Amino acid sequence: MKVAVLGCGSVGSQVVRLLLEQADDLEARVGARIEIAGVAVRRLNAPREIEVPDGLLTTDSAGLVARDDVDLVIETIGGIEPARSLILRAFEHGKSVVTANKALLAEDGPTLFEAADKAERDLYYEAAVAGAIPILRPLRESLAGDRVTRVLGIVNGTTNFILDKMDTAGSGFNEALDEAQELGYAEADPTADVEGFDAAAKIAILASLAFHTRVTAADVHREGITEVTAADVKSAQEMGSVVKLLGIAELVPSPGFETVASATSSTSGGGSDQGGVSVRVHPAMIPRSHPLASVREAFNAVFVESEAAGQLMFYGPGAGGSPTASAVLGDLVTVARNRLAGTRGAGESAYADRRVLPMGETVTRYHVAIDVDDRAGVLAAVATAFADHGVSIQTVRQEGRGEDAQLVVVSHAATDAQLSATVKALREMDIVREVTSVMRVEGGDE
Amino acid sequence: MKVAVLGCGSVGSQVVRLLLEQADDLEARVGARIEIAGVAVRRLNAPREIEVPDGLLTTDSAGLVARDDVDLVIETIGGIEPARSLILRAFEHGKSVVTANKALLAEDGPTLFEAADKAERDLYYEAAVAGAIPILRPLRESLAGDRVTRVLGIVNGTTNFILDKMDTAGSGFNEALDEAQELGYAEADPTADVEGFDAAAKIAILASLAFHTRVTAADVHREGITEVTAADVKSAQEMGSVVKLLGIAELVPSPGFETVASATSSTSGGGSDQGGVSVRVHPAMIPRSHPLASVREAFNAVFVESEAAGQLMFYGPGAGGSPTASAVLGDLVTVARNRLAGTRGAGESAYADRRVLPMGETVTRYHVAIDVDDRAGVLAAVATAFADHGVSIQTVRQEGRGEDAQLVVVSHAATDAQLSATVKALREMDIVREVTSVMRVEGGDE
Repeated sequence: MKVAVLGCGSVGSQVVRLLLEQADDLEARVGARIEIAGVAVRRLNAPREIEVPDGLLTTDSAGLVARDDVDLVIETIGGIEPARSLILRAFEHGKSVVTANKALLAEDGPTLFEAADKAERDLYYEAAVAGAIPILRPLRESLAGDRVTRVLGIVNGTTNFILDKMDTAGSGFNEALDEAQELGYAEADPTADVEGFDAAAKIAILASLAFHTRVTAADVHREGITEVTAADVKSAQEMGSVVKLLGIAELVPSPGFETVASATSSTSGGGSDQGGVSVRVHPAMIPRSHPLASVREAFNAVFVESEAAGQLMFYGPGAGGSPTASAVLGDLVTVARNRLAGTRGAGESAYADRRVLPMGETVTRYHVAIDVDDRAGVLAAVATAFADHGVSIQTVRQEGRGEDAQLVVVSHAATDAQLSATVKALREMDIVREVTSVMRVEGGDE
Repeated sequence: MKVAVLGCGSVGSQVVRLLLEQADDLEARVGARIEIAGVAVRRLNAPREIEVPDGLLTTDSAGLVARDDVDLVIETIGGIEPARSLILRAFEHGKSVVTANKALLAEDGPTLFEAADKAERDLYYEAAVAGAIPILRPLRESLAGDRVTRVLGIVNGTTNFILDKMDTAGSGFNEALDEAQELGYAEADPTADVEGFDAAAKIAILASLAFHTRVTAADVHREGITEVTAADVKSAQEMGSVVKLLGIAELVPSPGFETVASATSSTSGGGSDQGGVSVRVHPAMIPRSHPLASVREAFNAVFVESEAAGQLMFYGPGAGGSPTASAVLGDLVTVARNRLAGTRGAGESAYADRRVLPMGETVTRYHVAIDVDDRAGVLAAVATAFADHGVSIQTVRQEGRGEDAQLVVVSHAATDAQLSATVKALREMDIVREVTSVMRVEGGDE
């Protein structure tokens, strides 16, 4: 069996290293020797983490993926192009493909899945989400006999590192970002991480698998962590919670299952009879007792709730060349075995075709901290603002501070539209000096 | 596709329920309708959790597994016989098998694997270890391109519940066991759980998959939790640790990789050139900062270390009818897909054939608490006892209490033979009034 490796950066070089170092074990596990046919790079003389054996490096990636002696292609280039064209070309030439490319899968997965189906070849991509953590295979296979109802993921290590620093060291966002950059956890341009683009791509992939529905990055409501303040973090601590950037994918029951649903809420989009899914990325407060709360530093974890299995969590390193290469090689063994057996694994499963709900229809809870005048009637006025929007209150904490007071309100579950309208109304009230913190609350009782 | 379900107890009844309730989803995921051919039970009129549709119940299990129209067999009876004979009979008649039977797999797995190979059919058993937690598939497939070096598992919910109560409520063992029995977490005869037999079966299965080596329950060094005292738990708390019953499977480097190995230590058993594996179940102190330390109540978790992926953890409910049924159904979907495609998954992988080390050769660390006379020279004498056995000391804590004192010693890594000989020597010393706590230390720096 011959494998072409595209890219020789931090992931590609570790893939090559493992292919060489573990060759005997891989042979025993696959049932055939896996040899490297070539390693496609942009520049032959660039500095690399490993020494690639003589004669394997090539700049002709299009030629490599089409070579007759190549059976399998591993794509570690990342980004949309040329990765997409090379993968499609690989399928056209009957190769099986393993990729770590979350951006491409989240943007244009269906094109790849259709090409794989047409070629009757495998497309595996465990490494695209949460690095070394086996999460796609469990969702796709282990939970295939169950009904997944919710996925909560800490799927971006950079933002978790920053929020963890803000929590443990009391840093502000900029200070924590500086430290993350110094330690190599954040890039010089941190936009993809701190604005939630990376997490959005990953939760789109997770949602697609969990709910058997096509979800792309464009469907994901996305909020980053740049506006999370030290005050938000402190407010979370005071209620026994911690702020995390969560990727969330939830199954929303069909209107028929809801007691208060209006018939008109299910007119847009397809598949509304089966209910819909909410897919989003935003910072949220979760209780310290939640298993995700103890995910520290740059680690990743994915928490899965399903009807029969209950609550599961998968934890580990979410990035890094060597962990990501482990996930790539795991896929490679499966794909190579399938090829030897003349078969392929399950392709895309999108039969459920559920509607992705707009954020306004998503049911969530808010934590709102408000500076108010400290005088009679203030609490009643604030409570009325919530009630006017149909939002009921779970807890209120009031703290006098001389002339003013701070009110911290945690709501019960309501739609995001109701909740954000409540906050807008609060901001317009005379007695409200400032709304100092607004954040969603997840992972607790509703 | 027709499936025969053997047993209709807490797992079997939930399997039947899910097969009926999720029939449409299962059909979409498998590509064929899955129908129940029959449900084999001992007594037709026994009380059951669910209503089995008319005509499906039968007492003729041997007849059911041999029926021509049956494609797949799910075994949820448990225990050695008649489960083994029925599974072997199923293979003889060309059926694929899914089982949740840890005891049978750990005692006589090879017989089953060979029967599956001979019949060219699948044998899947995710539900046998850690209930709903997907752990066998990740070990077998996701990590197939990596080298697993260690598996630490909290794989028995009953003992974790008891130890958690001892930790949080300060209960003694008997008190905590009573509570576990009242709440249904422990059986009237708790021997299989509290003496570690259940955990031993599970770690044998995990070790086999992780190290591509046959490990049976008989190979596992086993110590239960009946001798864990409130004093042990308190002593753990004082050093920032918690007591857990761990199933441990470790890859031990071959002698060539060790600097101090004697040539004579590798003469017994086969495969010594490849090193060996240590497979054991015993209570151990782990630091509170370790991800396994926060596994509370009756939850399970498996912590996996591998060369490329680093540290991974898989967490969830380790038992219960519905979670276990989720794992069974996940396997069923895979096995049914394979059958439709005319193929099968990877069979047993035991090519590495590593030696299982005796406990005495296993490298570990001890925590020892000793009541001693409070006089000059005592610490020197105790330290000398450790040194005489080649054991170096990591930390010592001494606490005067009037006429006597307590010494708490945590060793560096040494063989279990060296460490237990040290404890034996301490017990024989005049200045030692009592060795009050001896426990292994895992999950930290060595």
